[in-house]
Amino acid sequence: MEKVTVAVETPYDVLIDHDLLKHAAAHLEDLIQGKKVLIVTDENVASFGYLGNLQEAIVGITSGVDTYVLPAGEAQKSAENYVALQGHLATLNYSRSDVIIALGGGVIGDLVGFTAATYLRGIDYIQIPTTLLSAIDSSVGGKTAIDLPQGKNLVGAFYQPRRVLCDLDTFQTLGETIFEDGCAELIKYGMILDGDLLGQLMDRESPLNALSGDLGAIVKRCVEIKRDVVLEDEHDLGLRQMLNFGHTIGHAVEQASHYKVSHGRGVATGMILTQIMAEKEGLTELFLTERFNKLLNQYHLLNQLNLVKDYDFEDLTAAMTNDKKRRGGEITEIFPDSFGKCRLETMPFDQYAGYLAAIIADLKADKLPIVLDGDEVA
Amino acid sequence: MEKVTVAVETPYDVLIDHDLLKHAAAHLEDLIQGKKVLIVTDENVASFGYLGNLQEAIVGITSGVDTYVLPAGEAQKSAENYVALQGHLATLNYSRSDVIIALGGGVIGDLVGFTAATYLRGIDYIQIPTTLLSAIDSSVGGKTAIDLPQGKNLVGAFYQPRRVLCDLDTFQTLGETIFEDGCAELIKYGMILDGDLLGQLMDRESPLNALSGDLGAIVKRCVEIKRDVVLEDEHDLGLRQMLNFGHTIGHAVEQASHYKVSHGRGVATGMILTQIMAEKEGLTELFLTERFNKLLNQYHLLNQLNLVKDYDFEDLTAAMTNDKKRRGGEITEIFPDSFGKCRLETMPFDQYAGYLAAIIADLKADKLPIVLDGDEVA
Ligand SMILES: NC(=O)c1ccc[n+]([C@@H]2O[C@H](COP(=O)([O-])OP(=O)(O)OC[C@H]3O[C@@H](n4cnc5c(N)ncnc54)[C@H](O)[C@@H]3O)[C@@H](O)[C@H]2O)c1
Ligand SMILES: NC(=O)c1ccc[n+]([C@@H]2O[C@H](COP(=O)([O-])OP(=O)(O)OC[C@H]3O[C@@H](n4cnc5c(N)ncnc54)[C@H](O)[C@@H]3O)[C@@H](O)[C@H]2O)c1
Ligand SMILES: [Zn+2]
Ligand SMILES: [Zn+2]
Repeated sequence: MEKVTVAVETPYDVLIDHDLLKHAAAHLEDLIQGKKVLIVTDENVASFGYLGNLQEAIVGITSGVDTYVLPAGEAQKSAENYVALQGHLATLNYSRSDVIIALGGGVIGDLVGFTAATYLRGIDYIQIPTTLLSAIDSSVGGKTAIDLPQGKNLVGAFYQPRRVLCDLDTFQTLGETIFEDGCAELIKYGMILDGDLLGQLMDRESPLNALSGDLGAIVKRCVEIKRDVVLEDEHDLGLRQMLNFGHTIGHAVEQASHYKVSHGRGVATGMILTQIMAEKEGLTELFLTERFNKLLNQYHLLNQLNLVKDYDFEDLTAAMTNDKKRRGGEITEIFPDSFGKCRLETMPFDQYAGYLAAIIADLKADKLPIVLDGDEVA
Repeated sequence: MEKVTVAVETPYDVLIDHDLLKHAAAHLEDLIQGKKVLIVTDENVASFGYLGNLQEAIVGITSGVDTYVLPAGEAQKSAENYVALQGHLATLNYSRSDVIIALGGGVIGDLVGFTAATYLRGIDYIQIPTTLLSAIDSSVGGKTAIDLPQGKNLVGAFYQPRRVLCDLDTFQTLGETIFEDGCAELIKYGMILDGDLLGQLMDRESPLNALSGDLGAIVKRCVEIKRDVVLEDEHDLGLRQMLNFGHTIGHAVEQASHYKVSHGRGVATGMILTQIMAEKEGLTELFLTERFNKLLNQYHLLNQLNLVKDYDFEDLTAAMTNDKKRRGGEITEIFPDSFGKCRLETMPFDQYAGYLAAIIADLKADKLPIVLDGDEVA
């Protein structure tokens, strides 16, 4: 078993292994023994049996397990679900010493984390990520949030989980495109913070998949990177912004597509456009677009560009402008500097919008210096 | 001007004086200069001109002032208003570096505090309490919350304001019963933590009112008491529970009355019943009921007992039981021990329910060892 400890105020362990769900009682005993436990998940995750397995594994040591199953998808990360979930906890008389488990991808993790952060002003929660993306990114670090119609992640809290169980076996039922979404954040880590990891990904014989022998090691490496960033800047005042490489454009694409484009593919779109922008405008010395393009294509992470290019540019920049205004008048963007290194650069939003308009124009005219690999995916 | 500094992680000042609203720009300059400011208040507070005065006072130094006016009353501390307010901030593109001001009583303060705690994972807010109760209690210490239909304050966060401006002049428009509600929390401070203050209140020639010359000094003393408790136990894990003297029964009464009984009078009810319980069951050596009764009567804080005695006992204990379950199987109650000292005592809920049943029976049979002073108030 791999273990990464995140030494925030109340330190917690991220356990990475096969078969963790089956032995969840042993791995969670100190946190849930004799307590009421609410497991929140989505219909897909429940349909693959993970909810039943987890419930069966832990019910004996708790004072009772309740379950709460939502439909799948980003639309569930809503204020309505947040309020309903709070009401459910209150109706069941959950106390400050009871526990909530988020079993699922980043959508469930973010919603449950924010609920736990604020029910009775904070109760314990445990993350059991079941997508690659949530395992390597959203389940660790304590950023929790819900979306508003006005934009993504606008309401939330910094609130760390008490433990993270990453059962690698659960990835085997992930649809291919969902596994690939996780690879977008994986490639992000390589680009911004770990040249070795990036090289490893570029050089491997066959693309990473749910059965790859080194999957556990790769997940662990990503969790370590995330841990290091979070420990430096838990509340997102500086360094942690690096993790947003590709996310400025990514969030705007997600929102403008009404969440038909997934988070992972939104981020992939954002990363490649940001890299092209950086090369074109002389914002980086690192000319990487071609190899980056190839790597993203291995995971089919760019074909949604065929959709994005038909978007109304106004919609896209409106979403982005509002987002940026909310984060302050200027924009801080993350640019790759060399292999595995990146730089935060703050500029007036208008300057950024100019760069962006140039790239979108190229995209629309099929003049981007990249190739797509085939079918559209959204 | 009186000033109390609350030295939490980001320390803040509580300013207490006359005429603060008029000079708000000077008192808030460092926090709001060049920023967008949303003032949230209720219709009563707006109707007395405080909203207009504040807006006029600060608009010049901000980059723009928006206002948000809610109806008055506890029912506004709702999830619906919370979500609507978040949406409003997002629509106006408020950024992490903008500011919200809570102008009003504890209802506005709690709702706005929780909104500020979670919009973009936390933006600055300023408390401008306009009731005695919010000045001496809710505006200081960072407990923020909204109610659910299932009970009071079930969702919230610990989130400190950046400043508190307590303009004593605003109390002059408070209805008498609302001023008296504040006196309930004032008497609470005396009972649990400050024998001198309690003595002072018992001995004064005429009851405290909005024009009393020593009002500023008394507000200051209460804020100091609250500050000391909060500094010892910001997150309500121990000592801070003392501030809940009278609140177990108080919250249940508020809820069972569908908030027709105000918070202050709920607390007064809870305090006297808890004191009688303590004497009757040998839980205290301090026999104070008679003098306590007299003090509460000076502020007309007990006449709602004529209403409460007709309540369904089941309703009352159901509200309380659920509340207690949520806080854990046992109940921790606060009992006066000597003048200005109290004790936390944890007991099984059933034991407590037995004591309570005995008192409610006496109440219903008009056998409580107290006298009421006159008209019903709720
Ligand atoms: N908090 C953070 O730091 C952070 C970081 C990155 C992303 N995020 C958020 O995470 C969300 C995206 O996460 P995601 O990609 O996991 O999305 P998701 O939770 O929607 O999961 C993607 C899909 O996979 C399904 N699924 C989950 N586990 C499965 C399994 N084991 N087998 C089969 N299907 C399974 C889900 O039902 C869903 O349809 C976004 O809302 C994003 O904003 C948060
Ligand atoms: N956060 C905390 O630590 C804490 C502590 C104690 C109480 N509370 C909460 O505070 C709330 C009670 O506060 P409250 O008693 O101030 O109630 P409130 O905010 O409802 O105000 C009482 C009434 O006074 C009116 N009012 C306010 N200022 C006025 C003024 N200057 N002139 C005339 N009318 C005015 C209001 O419109 C309202 O009708 C409850 O929700 C309680 O749970 C919180
Ligand atoms: Zn992401
Ligand atoms: Zn109170």
